[in-house]
Amino acid sequence: MLATTDQTVPVVRSEKGLPHGLKDALITVFGERFTTSSAVCLQHGTDESAYTPVPPDAVVFPESTEEVAKAVAACHRHRVPVIPFGVGSSIEGHLLAVHGGVSIDTSRMNRVLDVRPEDLTATVQAGVTREDLNRELASTGFFFSVDPGANASMGGMVATAASGTNTVRYGTMRDNVLSLCVVTADGKIIRTARRARKSSAGYNLTQLFTGSEGTLGVITEITVKLHPQPEAIAAAVVNFPDVRSAVSAVILALQMGVPLARAEMLDALTIKAINAHSRTTLVEAPTLFLEFSGSKAQVQEQGEALQALAEEQGGGDFRWATRPEERNRLWTPRHHAYFACIQLRPGSRSFTTDACVPISSLAECITETIADIEASGLLAPVFGHVGDGNFHCLLLVDPAQGDEVQAAEELSHRLMRRAIRFEGTCTGEHGVGLHKVPYLEEEHGAATVEVMRRIKRALDPHNILNPGKVVNFNTGGS
Amino acid sequence: MLATTDQTVPVVRSEKGLPHGLKDALITVFGERFTTSSAVCLQHGTDESAYTPVPPDAVVFPESTEEVAKAVAACHRHRVPVIPFGVGSSIEGHLLAVHGGVSIDTSRMNRVLDVRPEDLTATVQAGVTREDLNRELASTGFFFSVDPGANASMGGMVATAASGTNTVRYGTMRDNVLSLCVVTADGKIIRTARRARKSSAGYNLTQLFTGSEGTLGVITEITVKLHPQPEAIAAAVVNFPDVRSAVSAVILALQMGVPLARAEMLDALTIKAINAHSRTTLVEAPTLFLEFSGSKAQVQEQGEALQALAEEQGGGDFRWATRPEERNRLWTPRHHAYFACIQLRPGSRSFTTDACVPISSLAECITETIADIEASGLLAPVFGHVGDGNFHCLLLVDPAQGDEVQAAEELSHRLMRRAIRFEGTCTGEHGVGLHKVPYLEEEHGAATVEVMRRIKRALDPHNILNPGKVVNFNTGGS
Repeated sequence: MLATTDQTVPVVRSEKGLPHGLKDALITVFGERFTTSSAVCLQHGTDESAYTPVPPDAVVFPESTEEVAKAVAACHRHRVPVIPFGVGSSIEGHLLAVHGGVSIDTSRMNRVLDVRPEDLTATVQAGVTREDLNRELASTGFFFSVDPGANASMGGMVATAASGTNTVRYGTMRDNVLSLCVVTADGKIIRTARRARKSSAGYNLTQLFTGSEGTLGVITEITVKLHPQPEAIAAAVVNFPDVRSAVSAVILALQMGVPLARAEMLDALTIKAINAHSRTTLVEAPTLFLEFSGSKAQVQEQGEALQALAEEQGGGDFRWATRPEERNRLWTPRHHAYFACIQLRPGSRSFTTDACVPISSLAECITETIADIEASGLLAPVFGHVGDGNFHCLLLVDPAQGDEVQAAEELSHRLMRRAIRFEGTCTGEHGVGLHKVPYLEEEHGAATVEVMRRIKRALDPHNILNPGKVVNFNTGGS
Repeated sequence: MLATTDQTVPVVRSEKGLPHGLKDALITVFGERFTTSSAVCLQHGTDESAYTPVPPDAVVFPESTEEVAKAVAACHRHRVPVIPFGVGSSIEGHLLAVHGGVSIDTSRMNRVLDVRPEDLTATVQAGVTREDLNRELASTGFFFSVDPGANASMGGMVATAASGTNTVRYGTMRDNVLSLCVVTADGKIIRTARRARKSSAGYNLTQLFTGSEGTLGVITEITVKLHPQPEAIAAAVVNFPDVRSAVSAVILALQMGVPLARAEMLDALTIKAINAHSRTTLVEAPTLFLEFSGSKAQVQEQGEALQALAEEQGGGDFRWATRPEERNRLWTPRHHAYFACIQLRPGSRSFTTDACVPISSLAECITETIADIEASGLLAPVFGHVGDGNFHCLLLVDPAQGDEVQAAEELSHRLMRRAIRFEGTCTGEHGVGLHKVPYLEEEHGAATVEVMRRIKRALDPHNILNPGKVVNFNTGGS
């Protein structure tokens, strides 16, 4: 069942490389934007997971939807896999070319096509990163809300149904995608919806492709919702005697309807990592990083509500920041938490978990998990998007130590089971990729996964779209 | 292309009725909860559309998901259609048994299964109506937000991706469904997701079934999000010199980030209908019905913002109400608008349109449409959910007058084209049903509809699930 180690990645590619006819066809379309350079291929078979990279046979760099369609149509004729590539920040093995094939690098599809502040929408090519988009929007008074930490490509964020720190207020990628342009397995170009804010016009293809991880189509253009920049923003940091009280303060606020903009919980070990990395002097205890936004009066009101709730839960004093540079200074350590944690153990790689449970079970789930980590002897900081019920453990492992890898796998396995027991999911925002294929059936049941498999087969009958990811194509077993 | 008249409903049912084996199987499961009574069948082949009813061959009244599964499995064995039935409030011909078959009436599936205020979730059987659910929630401090006007069943609301008056603040059904229990075409029971607030665990089946209008599976249980009851609510009514200024006041508020709870625009003719029906003395001019909610300070702040914007647009004085009974009195005429409009012309039936466009185009789209109505000589009040870009024209037609029916069809046709020209959709919240099947391809393009058709065929290979609705099963043509 376990599929986290390098060894278990089922590489089934042929050693022969690409068929000549396909190579010629791709060179005709892409010229020097087609490459089989081993360095470039290696980079495109690498992600942020603990997996050993598996390079594709070639990489193309399209600049338009039409070029993507030509690449996919050519690969379809030759039954060769295609794997869309954004910036490579996936952490579930999404990009590994386990069946070989052609990586479609979207980095040259970096144009913001259409900004409509009057409709609260923007349309971008898939290779635009979220920071690119927000730079483009800076003068408009509107922003794009989804922030998964990494400066991911918008295409990648759609593909994994990404979310992140301000989901509690503005929703996940799913809540912010209005329409997609997608290239289907046979190289046709479709648009999933129009630009209205809502629609009941047929099956929701927008949401079917969102989170499909490149296995149902190649996402080439994305129309998203924008939000007005709030008049006022305040940030705060506060520590608590234990994880339970920190989490409870946030859950109570949500139950009261306080519209928190961000609410992140970091455990004591994460704070220790941050102090070492960012040279801060935060109290090494479970800590909330909070953000409030709205009118000045609303921000004041929300802040007071949270202070009262935190006090009831035994929280310490709030450190506040309101001016942009102060807020950045206060929050930067949170944004660097991932890298700070990795450096707790130089040379280690992180097996990053992604459990998400109903919010009332979050404190219990995290508390059980931290006890499990302590019993395992692993080093594993824990932090999470409390308002969503989602948290990550960074299991810091020396990949050369088989027993550590084994312990991490077992812990990860127990955590996924625990999340499922709490009516939650094994992945709140990272996706299934290679890693969680075996858990999908455990989480949803065989009949549900069979429905997913029927959809996969209907839309990609030759299994050329990022094969090996999300669902097993051929068998009901896992 | 036009498919609004009774004549064009393509009834392809056999006159032989149900196969004996199927009848016996259903009687074994349902006993007296199986019927072929012509009165009951007629009622189950009737909806709120202008179509002439087309009754099913039989009706069953299941009380559980398991009974639905047995009914569907039996129909699947005999290749007989099944049509899920909630309360019959659909207005696009969804319930008409154009291929015959068995209506699955969910009215006995009326249990609220699980209320979890601590997680902001509730789980209900499909036959629970939204008012039932909110009665059940009354003492919890939480509520279910989606309000399409009719006291629809939750199953029906999921099936059509319903929305309504407070979508601008709380979202559509799509935004409020967390998980579904669904019976597939072959009678298997699946659950689409678990109870976490977000998930990236495989394809988004929840959203695929939401809005699928009974054509991909029978929805039997629904887990929805709840929202905390706001501390304070205020309602207001204000009239404007023209439609454009009324719409603009709302759009400007949204662009500023004012979180309006409801924002409905009613044209002068609708107000005239209301005055006649509800014995009110509203100024017969384009009018906004507004609702604000939040803390007392927020409500105050939002109300002031709207008053300033309305004044800039030439709006009149606000009539305010804050106490529950006053608010109800102020808003009741809006809730009765549909019935008031129908009574503008006793004996008429309404062809109800459902265009939805990007919000900056809404004023222009409505203004063009009202001019079109005036030129057509039809009587057609117009009102809409301004914040969503969605509006309805009630084309009041004497079904016996062929030229009126023809004029209504042509106007409806032009409106759908107009909405599509503004990058909008022919249906914001009512669904495709029978009526809009021909428009789906015009709106999305043939390749997109072909993807929908592949999904339909993959999940319902024998076309037994509400056949004839949403997409044509066999052909690319329409």
